Amino acid sequence: MIRTVCLNTISKALTQDCLAADISELRLVEGNVIWADVSDPTSHDFEELAEEFGFHHLSIEDCRTEHQRPKIEEYTGYYFIVLYEAQLAGPEDRLELRELNIFLGKNFLVTVHSRPIRAIDTAARLWNEWMDRADQGAGLIAYLLIDAIVDDYLPLLDLVSERMDDLEDSIFGEWRAEVIEEIFSVKKKLLYLRRSITPLRDVFNIILRREQPIFPREIHVYFQDVFDHLIRVADTIDTLRDMLSSTMDAYLSVSGNRMNKIMKRLTSVATILMSVTLIAGIYGMNFTFMPELRMRYGYVYALLSMVAVGVGLYWYLKKVEWI
Amino acid sequence: MIRTVCLNTISKALTQDCLAADISELRLVEGNVIWADVSDPTSHDFEELAEEFGFHHLSIEDCRTEHQRPKIEEYTGYYFIVLYEAQLAGPEDRLELRELNIFLGKNFLVTVHSRPIRAIDTAARLWNEWMDRADQGAGLIAYLLIDAIVDDYLPLLDLVSERMDDLEDSIFGEWRAEVIEEIFSVKKKLLYLRRSITPLRDVFNIILRREQPIFPREIHVYFQDVFDHLIRVADTIDTLRDMLSSTMDAYLSVSGNRMNKIMKRLTSVATILMSVTLIAGIYGMNFTFMPELRMRYGYVYALLSMVAVGVGLYWYLKKVEWI
Amino acid sequence: MIRTVCLNTISKALTQDCLAADISELRLVEGNVIWADVSDPTSHDFEELAEEFGFHHLSIEDCRTEHQRPKIEEYTGYYFIVLYEAQLAGPEDRLELRELNIFLGKNFLVTVHSRPIRAIDTAARLWNEWMDRADQGAGLIAYLLIDAIVDDYLPLLDLVSERMDDLEDSIFGEWRAEVIEEIFSVKKKLLYLRRSITPLRDVFNIILRREQPIFPREIHVYFQDVFDHLIRVADTIDTLRDMLSSTMDAYLSVSGNRMNKIMKRLTSVATILMSVTLIAGIYGMNFTFMPELRMRYGYVYALLSMVAVGVGLYWYLKKVEWI
Amino acid sequence: MIRTVCLNTISKALTQDCLAADISELRLVEGNVIWADVSDPTSHDFEELAEEFGFHHLSIEDCRTEHQRPKIEEYTGYYFIVLYEAQLAGPEDRLELRELNIFLGKNFLVTVHSRPIRAIDTAARLWNEWMDRADQGAGLIAYLLIDAIVDDYLPLLDLVSERMDDLEDSIFGEWRAEVIEEIFSVKKKLLYLRRSITPLRDVFNIILRREQPIFPREIHVYFQDVFDHLIRVADTIDTLRDMLSSTMDAYLSVSGNRMNKIMKRLTSVATILMSVTLIAGIYGMNFTFMPELRMRYGYVYALLSMVAVGVGLYWYLKKVEWI
Amino acid sequence: MIRTVCLNTISKALTQDCLAADISELRLVEGNVIWADVSDPTSHDFEELAEEFGFHHLSIEDCRTEHQRPKIEEYTGYYFIVLYEAQLAGPEDRLELRELNIFLGKNFLVTVHSRPIRAIDTAARLWNEWMDRADQGAGLIAYLLIDAIVDDYLPLLDLVSERMDDLEDSIFGEWRAEVIEEIFSVKKKLLYLRRSITPLRDVFNIILRREQPIFPREIHVYFQDVFDHLIRVADTIDTLRDMLSSTMDAYLSVSGNRMNKIMKRLTSVATILMSVTLIAGIYGMNFTFMPELRMRYGYVYALLSMVAVGVGLYWYLKKVEWI
Repeated sequence: MIRTVCLNTISKALTQDCLAADISELRLVEGNVIWADVSDPTSHDFEELAEEFGFHHLSIEDCRTEHQRPKIEEYTGYYFIVLYEAQLAGPEDRLELRELNIFLGKNFLVTVHSRPIRAIDTAARLWNEWMDRADQGAGLIAYLLIDAIVDDYLPLLDLVSERMDDLEDSIFGEWRAEVIEEIFSVKKKLLYLRRSITPLRDVFNIILRREQPIFPREIHVYFQDVFDHLIRVADTIDTLRDMLSSTMDAYLSVSGNRMNKIMKRLTSVATILMSVTLIAGIYGMNFTFMPELRMRYGYVYALLSMVAVGVGLYWYLKKVEWI
Repeated sequence: MIRTVCLNTISKALTQDCLAADISELRLVEGNVIWADVSDPTSHDFEELAEEFGFHHLSIEDCRTEHQRPKIEEYTGYYFIVLYEAQLAGPEDRLELRELNIFLGKNFLVTVHSRPIRAIDTAARLWNEWMDRADQGAGLIAYLLIDAIVDDYLPLLDLVSERMDDLEDSIFGEWRAEVIEEIFSVKKKLLYLRRSITPLRDVFNIILRREQPIFPREIHVYFQDVFDHLIRVADTIDTLRDMLSSTMDAYLSVSGNRMNKIMKRLTSVATILMSVTLIAGIYGMNFTFMPELRMRYGYVYALLSMVAVGVGLYWYLKKVEWI
Repeated sequence: MIRTVCLNTISKALTQDCLAADISELRLVEGNVIWADVSDPTSHDFEELAEEFGFHHLSIEDCRTEHQRPKIEEYTGYYFIVLYEAQLAGPEDRLELRELNIFLGKNFLVTVHSRPIRAIDTAARLWNEWMDRADQGAGLIAYLLIDAIVDDYLPLLDLVSERMDDLEDSIFGEWRAEVIEEIFSVKKKLLYLRRSITPLRDVFNIILRREQPIFPREIHVYFQDVFDHLIRVADTIDTLRDMLSSTMDAYLSVSGNRMNKIMKRLTSVATILMSVTLIAGIYGMNFTFMPELRMRYGYVYALLSMVAVGVGLYWYLKKVEWI
Repeated sequence: MIRTVCLNTISKALTQDCLAADISELRLVEGNVIWADVSDPTSHDFEELAEEFGFHHLSIEDCRTEHQRPKIEEYTGYYFIVLYEAQLAGPEDRLELRELNIFLGKNFLVTVHSRPIRAIDTAARLWNEWMDRADQGAGLIAYLLIDAIVDDYLPLLDLVSERMDDLEDSIFGEWRAEVIEEIFSVKKKLLYLRRSITPLRDVFNIILRREQPIFPREIHVYFQDVFDHLIRVADTIDTLRDMLSSTMDAYLSVSGNRMNKIMKRLTSVATILMSVTLIAGIYGMNFTFMPELRMRYGYVYALLSMVAVGVGLYWYLKKVEWI
Repeated sequence: MIRTVCLNTISKALTQDCLAADISELRLVEGNVIWADVSDPTSHDFEELAEEFGFHHLSIEDCRTEHQRPKIEEYTGYYFIVLYEAQLAGPEDRLELRELNIFLGKNFLVTVHSRPIRAIDTAARLWNEWMDRADQGAGLIAYLLIDAIVDDYLPLLDLVSERMDDLEDSIFGEWRAEVIEEIFSVKKKLLYLRRSITPLRDVFNIILRREQPIFPREIHVYFQDVFDHLIRVADTIDTLRDMLSSTMDAYLSVSGNRMNKIMKRLTSVATILMSVTLIAGIYGMNFTFMPELRMRYGYVYALLSMVAVGVGLYWYLKKVEWI
């Protein structure tokens, strides 16, 4: 389905839901900026787009096949941008990455996606509000769109960060062995998030340092801002990864410590029991001449000596902190 | 064996199976592009090629000796390219890397390989289909060939990725100790795949940034596309490596956890048994005066106290989760 | 609250607490440098600033939202700088990072912060003392301010370093298992400190290598000095991180060694006890014909043999250093 | 000892064993290329060389002191090159690195070494064979020499690779604890090999990218070839290092697994023995009223119950795979 | 204390111990090179230097405060260099790093240090010997000074390397648990050495690649030489670090192996003892009808069966290498 909006940056007139057939005409009007949003694109849609805007067949190909890496490619007359909107969904907080393809030209923007993208509504709304800056053309919509997507990573990372604080509390406080599985689930999420952000950051870095033939100078500061947010997101992901690996180390050493403590304790108890049992064994021997056996309170003495050995050993092991 | 195809980019006339002897003549015709595919090359083939196309003896030397690293070298009049087609083969999914040497000139392409390369058929087929873009010369065949090889890495990596998901399930779910050997087998595969892709990516990166004397400008976007796929493959390999090392860590810590649990349990059971045995030991002592021994239900009481101690300890150890 | 100071770099006249309303006039006087310090800024303050100095709405936006990453951004007519003052606070030496936003123009400096910044007082004091260098304008105040903040990291890092020496002593000397928790607390502090310094260092590196349109050449050497201090702080943090990970390794291996020693000892003791118990067990057998049982000193001999076996084993295990 | 060979690249006349005294004269003849090979150099040799060819005293100094790092330095009129020939020697396959110093000028090559270098003979032989390319001067001999040395690393690395396959088989197959010592011996070898190759690769990288005042353009492709081999050797070393660290990890986890299995088994057996012993202990008690003791087949029943408990526990532990 | 030496590079006349007051005059004479060595500088010394040579107050400030990072800074008219002389001192081979500040101008060199620097004497001696190259001015003394300091790192690193060989022998040969503490002590030393060399290497790298306004071209080759030595020292440190971490890994795995072996042995011995004890326990039961008890050689048979079980188990455990 193609939804088209046309804005004349001179007269500030906004035409909603233009007909696809009129796009060619609208593009000829000076100052007109056209945004075509294609959701669930059909083969026919792709052909129409390619013909109307003259897109290179390689970029159309990339658009067709899913799971592209995030990237910005320069073609004659337009940029082709792939990026991912991230969302935690479902009861298990599964990470969902939704692909958005953007064709960005001087006075047009085409967005293609097969799943709903929240940022498109946000960008559309802001475009209306920022009408006074609308003379900056298609680049401004692109900025609003990319910025909305990039900014949406931050609350998601805050959630991950909170989860990690819980994990850490669980490690140093009330112990749960299952923490390990959760640590790996967070680790994987961060790996995917990182993969959908860092390539974009690297490309922005290159784009912002070279000549910008398509955009006016004024829009450059906006893309600098998006780049700044991208770095912030990427830095936060890296910091979270560092902290997670540190949490993992903490888990392993605390887990090792706990295990050591338990084994020391159990083995110490075994040693005490064996010592006491030895006494019982000695007086279980069948020698004919064992004076203690005949003694009136021999049994009591034996029990007392067992208690004495047991308590003595316990006290000693307590002192050296093995129990 | 040398198979030669000649295409006139002006008249779009395709001549299959040209004679090797005619190559010199064909090359003189304007617009002719020649693709000579040499499989299982003999010493004679090499000499013929070197003479006909004027290849430098160093590149011929590289072509002769196998196990070159993937590379692109610039010689006067042509590029010399080495790359590897990857395939999982045999019952044990052994990784097979097949070397392909490409000599790429303005209007000729020579491919040399000692084992069958699937991508050659794919490229030949697509060349016919893309006849309308054929005026872009030998660069286009090179693109189709390299792209076919690079794209073939992706389904292979998907297989590896699926295998890794199985491994992970096996770690957190039904436990198998042999997982470790499979993890190392996957690790080695990724190491080899990485080694056959990353050098290529690095060389493409350099080539695409500098002047391109051999190719027309229009072909440049195609090589940009190959480069993009190379990055995607390399990125996927790196992500899989990251995930594998994470799986490895998970294996180690879960394995450690399981072992700790078992040792704790066994040692706890030993402690219980020793405590109970101690009671038996006490009443096995041979003191003359042991009132309990004479008691009517002494034996029953002893047994009951053993059960009591055993159950009590079990309950306690259960509570502190040592058993 | 806005506090404004104005210095005429020609007449060296300093006007404290100017009225906000006069700023526009003061800026017109040649040689006047204005420093406006805004603490706990209100929405109204932001609007006033944006209007008076012509700040871009994106930089105002960054100023409003907290937790920006440290950065230096170039806007037309001014630099926008974000950095963090670090302080250990509270009974638990919690690390506190306080954000400071700086707008630095040719002849004005605007500082915005919501929590008190010590460096502002230091910079104000030094500005008075360095009156003879005051002709270097707003850049000099910026230098004094940034330098005061960066230099404040060093005593803080010295504290961390001392804490780490204590931890190390505790590992190789009097052992405490809780060291692990402290190591992770220091690790986290270093992670946050690093995060608030390294982005700044990287940006300074770029700024110092390119053309400087705003500052006179003479101020350049001052920013080179700040950069040098930034590198020093960042290097110190990296060294401390290296040493911490080394301390962590030391903890783990010493902890493992201690545990091993204890387990060896306990198991050795168990072996001795079992050997001695075996002798008792043998003479506890009920065979009718056991000559030793009838011997006059059989019991004494048995006890002696127990001692002999116990001492012998102890001596042997001591020799092989298992006990 | 100085051995000198002179080749006239125009007349292709080769003069073996020239007198040291004649070198000055020979150098004046147009087209003459002189190769002086100095083995076991004396102080006098160094002075002679310095005077004859005008070598800078710093490069002579580097030549005198051994254990320089591999490098290429540019002096006025010549390059000074240090590299190492690698060889496995002795019964224990000790790695031997032999230093070779090369002074490479427009029409002369001086090689200095204190131990025999195999590559010198190889290069001398090839120089004779490649007489038709001899007009490329001293650069060609340098190429032949360096290429011979670099190529000699590959069979050596193949040996290391085979050794590593053996180690891996030993880890997953028939277990030997001594593997660990061999792994470290290989690791050290790779560290030294890497150290003697990577600096050279880095310098070649720089040299090949800049202007080449000494060599003619045609020799450039030869040095490109050496560079390619250097990368290949360095890449192979890095891959081997990666695989070795992976082998090391495999060793540690398999070793841990084996140990865990053994401890589980031993502790399980101990548990079984203790359970059975408990039964014996119970019937070893001396209570007056123990009906079982009087039973006709009490003893047999007791033995049977011991067997039952033993077999039952064994069966259970087998089922949970602890034994 | 300020010691001043003046050398006229034209007349080769050397004036020792010039008066501080004469420096201004001496600097005016053409060809004069002045070296002022300031040890234990007072505030007055700093003021005098700043005034006489026109040093920037920031470099004087750096000179005053100790613990600067090694660096080279360019000021108008001179370079300001900070570097560290390393020495092992005291009975425990404590690493001592002594700071040296150098102001290097066209025709003057000022060295400032608060602790004695050996390299100053070396450089002074060599300056006299190298009188024939003295026309290369202050740069030559700087070279001699820096080179002497950098070269002094190498014997120190040889010592560290020898210590590491001892540690390794101790790990694979006669075992000492204290090795771990020594490994960490060496690790720390290497960390400090690295920190005092690598920043210098990086700065030299930048300086040598750009235009050199202060030094004549001939001195450039000397600084290239210092850079080469710096790389060599830094490379050696990195190699030692790699080898140390490898030694550390060896320690951990060998230590783990030894522990495993001991535990296996002790647990195996325990199993044997328990089996034998079980036999004693069986014949300690009090059943009325136990035919063996009445047998003439029952006791001997029992003892023999104990020995048989013990030897049998020992033989079995020896075979599976658990003992």
